[in-house]
Amino acid sequence: MLQLIAFDADDTLWHNETLYLEVEEHFIALLASYAGPEQARQTLHQVETRNLAHYGYGIKGFTISLIEAAVALSGGRIQGSSIQSLIDVTREMLVAHVQVIDGAEEVLTLLSGRYELMLITKGDLFEQEAKVARSGLRDRFQRVEVVSDKTPEAYATLLTRYDVMPSAFVMVGNSLRSDILPVLDLGGQAVYIPYPATWSHEHAEVPQAGTIRFHQLEHIGLLPGLLDRLDERGPS
Amino acid sequence: MLQLIAFDADDTLWHNETLYLEVEEHFIALLASYAGPEQARQTLHQVETRNLAHYGYGIKGFTISLIEAAVALSGGRIQGSSIQSLIDVTREMLVAHVQVIDGAEEVLTLLSGRYELMLITKGDLFEQEAKVARSGLRDRFQRVEVVSDKTPEAYATLLTRYDVMPSAFVMVGNSLRSDILPVLDLGGQAVYIPYPATWSHEHAEVPQAGTIRFHQLEHIGLLPGLLDRLDERGPS
Repeated sequence: MLQLIAFDADDTLWHNETLYLEVEEHFIALLASYAGPEQARQTLHQVETRNLAHYGYGIKGFTISLIEAAVALSGGRIQGSSIQSLIDVTREMLVAHVQVIDGAEEVLTLLSGRYELMLITKGDLFEQEAKVARSGLRDRFQRVEVVSDKTPEAYATLLTRYDVMPSAFVMVGNSLRSDILPVLDLGGQAVYIPYPATWSHEHAEVPQAGTIRFHQLEHIGLLPGLLDRLDERGPS
Repeated sequence: MLQLIAFDADDTLWHNETLYLEVEEHFIALLASYAGPEQARQTLHQVETRNLAHYGYGIKGFTISLIEAAVALSGGRIQGSSIQSLIDVTREMLVAHVQVIDGAEEVLTLLSGRYELMLITKGDLFEQEAKVARSGLRDRFQRVEVVSDKTPEAYATLLTRYDVMPSAFVMVGNSLRSDILPVLDLGGQAVYIPYPATWSHEHAEVPQAGTIRFHQLEHIGLLPGLLDRLDERGPS
């Protein structure tokens, strides 16, 4: 019954948000003589949110937002060396070790023998391809797709391209906004695995009880059991 | 005989490099109290070239390179307001009017009735999708593909995905390095249309005479005639 199991990557298969939070702490310390932690954090988040429309997702846009927030918070007095340090710490993010979430590798290995697996990640093509390569998980997937945003249209395009019916499609991810709601809209199955530090931008309401194509798991290790049950139950 | 005609976008269908050169002039003026034009330009190009490995292609990476070069050239004394002005001018690039090259629209309209047309552009997914939308040319193409780099592997993946033989494939572009040489390597036809201000990074040697699958045109208006001749001649 189930044909294609797709996974989000950041904070579903590997830790990602924690890297951003570490850099945010560095930013707050760097701006300490100009602003308190709360003001620094708030200004950064405002600049980041506004800049999403200009830059899309990813580390390069985040770098520019950090610099812009630093200029604003310091009233233009920020030192060149501090600007350079923001460029340096974000450049380290680009080559950071990809820390795979406990159990993910084993689950993918098990499932890759049973289903067609796809990775669907949004954001920067260059950054995401590099992370997939560094993760060591590339060969578990038949396909890796990077989209600029995870809209219902983006999912519909992929299902059409690879000739998959929504009822045979399962998406697994940690973001209600990006991984779950658009897939439920299309008629697919969605498995929500919350991550402790999900970015505020990705928050949305948990779908109403009764959405029988919505499933929530505590950790990825429980996924094979859920898929077995879905396959037995047949299409909904 | 010919099945799929693919086009590069930047500096093949619309002007792009000129936007970068305008911002470079702004950068040189901004740094005038710290460095002469030649030193400013040279440092910027060095930083840009080094940063390609970190950031890939696109305006966001260029923005960070401008900031980094400004910090370096000023010995860290660059003003916050100057940093912000670099962010502002590059943000304008992201929404700049897409100036289509003379004749491109007419040629695409003519060819779209005869062949399957594809746009293949490298660089930032978010930026390139936005430019395609702003260009008004989207509906001339069956497919738009953004790749992180135009390697022979990237072209081979596309030909496999869409089931096209290299001998039935024509790539049209202004970069010998990205549009021409990898396609000749694969056995495809390549049409080189030089652009006056091609970025130094894209330079390569013009293939040796005798490469019968290599063609050079002075402007895109000559493309339909060339394709007619190629189709008469049959596969090489």
